[in-house]
Amino acid sequence: VERGGRPHLPEIEAVLLDIDGVLRIGDDAVPGAVEAVKQLRSADLALRFVTNTTSQPSRRITEELERLGFEPGPEAVVTPAGLAIKRCRELGHGRVMLLMNEAVKEDFGELQETEDEADAVIVGDLGEEFSYEILNRAFRAVIDGAALIALQKNRYWLKPNGLSLDVGPFVAALEYATEKEADVVGKPAPSFFELALDGLDVEPGQAAMVGDDIESDVGGALEAGIPGILVRTGKYREDAAEASSVEPTATVDSIADVPALLRSEPRSSSG
Amino acid sequence: VERGGRPHLPEIEAVLLDIDGVLRIGDDAVPGAVEAVKQLRSADLALRFVTNTTSQPSRRITEELERLGFEPGPEAVVTPAGLAIKRCRELGHGRVMLLMNEAVKEDFGELQETEDEADAVIVGDLGEEFSYEILNRAFRAVIDGAALIALQKNRYWLKPNGLSLDVGPFVAALEYATEKEADVVGKPAPSFFELALDGLDVEPGQAAMVGDDIESDVGGALEAGIPGILVRTGKYREDAAEASSVEPTATVDSIADVPALLRSEPRSSSG
Repeated sequence: VERGGRPHLPEIEAVLLDIDGVLRIGDDAVPGAVEAVKQLRSADLALRFVTNTTSQPSRRITEELERLGFEPGPEAVVTPAGLAIKRCRELGHGRVMLLMNEAVKEDFGELQETEDEADAVIVGDLGEEFSYEILNRAFRAVIDGAALIALQKNRYWLKPNGLSLDVGPFVAALEYATEKEADVVGKPAPSFFELALDGLDVEPGQAAMVGDDIESDVGGALEAGIPGILVRTGKYREDAAEASSVEPTATVDSIADVPALLRSEPRSSSG
Repeated sequence: VERGGRPHLPEIEAVLLDIDGVLRIGDDAVPGAVEAVKQLRSADLALRFVTNTTSQPSRRITEELERLGFEPGPEAVVTPAGLAIKRCRELGHGRVMLLMNEAVKEDFGELQETEDEADAVIVGDLGEEFSYEILNRAFRAVIDGAALIALQKNRYWLKPNGLSLDVGPFVAALEYATEKEADVVGKPAPSFFELALDGLDVEPGQAAMVGDDIESDVGGALEAGIPGILVRTGKYREDAAEASSVEPTATVDSIADVPALLRSEPRSSSG
């Protein structure tokens, strides 16, 4: 099933799994996905479930994976929110301005939400609540020295009534106004993938990212030095894959093929 | 008064005059400005009053110049609105979506305002009325093929209660969402200056721009091939002028010095 001959996947110790389009589509698990995840776990691979979702708190995402049978362990779900908090912790940003819906603020409980003297502005999904007033408040905080962190920077998404602005345009507005580049902590930022490996004690080359988006999942991972496996499910489109300048380390039909792919190389070669 | 030796200003036939900071400051004329404009007119120079103002219709700007004694002739005031209309006329954009305050829409009377099937989206100043809904409507129009025109792209301005977002960030948001570059028709776009010369029958090198903003006025004019004269009034700051990579053709204390500067060269040399 691999494209372009035998993939180069030596000594993989950890696997980063995209959720939507790879493990589940809509409300259902992808056929063979639950079994594949069990096989990866049996092969002693460390697993992380990585998603760019900014509309739900991590707890809800974990519950949903449990319901589908994926048995994510504690802290195995990695979201832009989780990485934003980690970034704030490292940089000592205790007071944050949060541009996101109320439900997701649950993920930021360890930080102090503030409207004044923020150390960082964290831009998530406010949907139709994005307004001049809110953006201006964020602008003034950044001008006054706050860091600008974006959970993602997607351009638009498909709502039932048509294509609609996502978070990215509002991040771009703040970047333009402040002449500061946002620290985008979601995919495809290489730092997203690097931080997803935190605590796993593996080098980027010893991990693999499995995703259905050639640019955001595979391209981002490769830029972080992590082999990228493209699956032909979810948002995968052959023409997009062929048009892309990104060369996946391997392309397989679905997550069900990933265990065999990773087992095709000896786990511990001695030279 | 010139900086860097004798300026190179041969055979100037037309002068573009910035308004705020050059001819007037706040509600008052700059000392000597009315007399200087009279002298330029007596020397048979064609004059255009150019401004980036997007909060007032041209009629109001003209009235204000008249009140101060500048006697602008008909059509002598050049604004981004005027140039946006010219652009729409040239490209056959009859149906336009207008993102701007109601007063300024007066300038767009010859175009048909529409919410559907717009040929062009024209982004002006909506102030605190910029919202997700309005931006999303503009986004969809551009995705559906409408041209994206911006009257200006300033980052922010100083309101009584503090620095506040200007039009630019919202233009940047639409550009990011649509992956299209806006046609910015205000300063410092070289096309603004080129179009300001329309109908004057002079080459760019035969005109001069007088402004107080080294980047927007002088830099933009120079990029359009028009000599740029910087005045030390209005927003002029010595440190900004020295830090800039823009080299004004001449720098003078105020508009009052411009007639002598332009007369310092023979109007008609024969080689």
